[in-house]
Amino acid sequence: ADFKVGIITISDRASSGEYPTGDLSGQAMRQCCESFPHYYNIIQQTIVSDDKEKIKGELLRMSDELKCNLVLTSGGTGFFERDITPEATLEVIERRAESLANYILIESMKIVPTACLSRAVIGTRGKTMIINLPGKPKAVKENFEILMRSNVLIHALGQLKGTDKH
Amino acid sequence: ADFKVGIITISDRASSGEYPTGDLSGQAMRQCCESFPHYYNIIQQTIVSDDKEKIKGELLRMSDELKCNLVLTSGGTGFFERDITPEATLEVIERRAESLANYILIESMKIVPTACLSRAVIGTRGKTMIINLPGKPKAVKENFEILMRSNVLIHALGQLKGTDKH
Amino acid sequence: ADFKVGIITISDRASSGEYPTGDLSGQAMRQCCESFPHYYNIIQQTIVSDDKEKIKGELLRMSDELKCNLVLTSGGTGFFERDITPEATLEVIERRAESLANYILIESMKIVPTACLSRAVIGTRGKTMIINLPGKPKAVKENFEILMRSNVLIHALGQLKGTDKH
Ligand code: NA
Repeated sequence: ADFKVGIITISDRASSGEYPTGDLSGQAMRQCCESFPHYYNIIQQTIVSDDKEKIKGELLRMSDELKCNLVLTSGGTGFFERDITPEATLEVIERRAESLANYILIESMKIVPTACLSRAVIGTRGKTMIINLPGKPKAVKENFEILMRSNVLIHALGQLKGTDKH
Repeated sequence: ADFKVGIITISDRASSGEYPTGDLSGQAMRQCCESFPHYYNIIQQTIVSDDKEKIKGELLRMSDELKCNLVLTSGGTGFFERDITPEATLEVIERRAESLANYILIESMKIVPTACLSRAVIGTRGKTMIINLPGKPKAVKENFEILMRSNVLIHALGQLKGTDKH
Repeated sequence: ADFKVGIITISDRASSGEYPTGDLSGQAMRQCCESFPHYYNIIQQTIVSDDKEKIKGELLRMSDELKCNLVLTSGGTGFFERDITPEATLEVIERRAESLANYILIESMKIVPTACLSRAVIGTRGKTMIINLPGKPKAVKENFEILMRSNVLIHALGQLKGTDKH
């Protein structure tokens, strides 16, 4: 596989084991990556609560220690009081990719207008791309599918890794 | 009404009483909210000049003291030298909602292409949502109508207040 | 001509003279401006490497010393390790124009979906508008043409210069 992936579910309730169905967002992210085994190799998957320092800790571990090429998060992107994933992400990334986030926004609003309630951030830290996805499993899958269109995400990851040519 | 609203017209000329017609932007914002009396209750309305500290002062008063759920501003979002509303807003908000601003941009450009001349910012401070609207009354109404579609703004405010369910 | 223009090609290879064809991005930006001699007067054109401090130096020189109304850059907006143009731009601008960048994004994605791989930033410093354009000459021309539609860029520059009326 070309790219090492880390997966983080961000949810107070999922992290305290409140969901009888388990971590469906985490499963959705896993399935997205496993649909492209040639590209993605999941090396780590975890769940954290909506705590800014804990989220930052996981992002730093997956970027700096585990050297993931891609870190996907799900959850904490809305307007609820505890939603703090975008702010945690902004504090660890070095370069923002607002155009990728806006691309997802534009395409996902064609599916459901309330997609604009996600404040998701995308950016890079070193050679790691960090992508906030919404909390709902259905939206996770839709967002990921949008990123795979026209090989947009593959090109971005290839540039970041240095395997894409200029 | 579900949400307490504060309204701020930001304009050197309106604040010095230069307009014989009065503050038409302020009237437009008022009419927008009064069209949905079940949702919105205007508790304060004011006019300030294009002065960053004065704008910040009004935003802080309406957020922290008056505990507005929603603060609407109109004016100061363009490229004129004194246009400083987005920068004042950025200095008081804690979480940005770029996706909401981009949603308005996308939809308002379908009405008039030069809608992209507005640098309007949206974000939250505590439990208050602050929304920059353009200066022209017609654009104020169009932007507000876009936000009311699919209950986008109502959901965002409900999440922020904690009355929307997860 | 109404507006003084500075042009900067940002590329390690172009700055070291590696391209046998010469600086095609710079030529593309020049041709864009020369198509509208009534509006644009190119007063300076240069090439710098993908070095944040060098890029900032050129942006400051063209803004503060040469008093350009418009500075166009090309290159360094992607995800390659050395791509740092947006970050250099963010450190010199005082007011961002995300809506203009998003307008370009929306329209250029209609031409090619991978347009969202550009992280281009637009903003103002004093009375100077700084616009990041992509590195490819074809994309430079497409982006510029989009900005000229409906006189969007002309209005923005006119507001900034103070010649547009409120
Ligand atoms: Na943005």
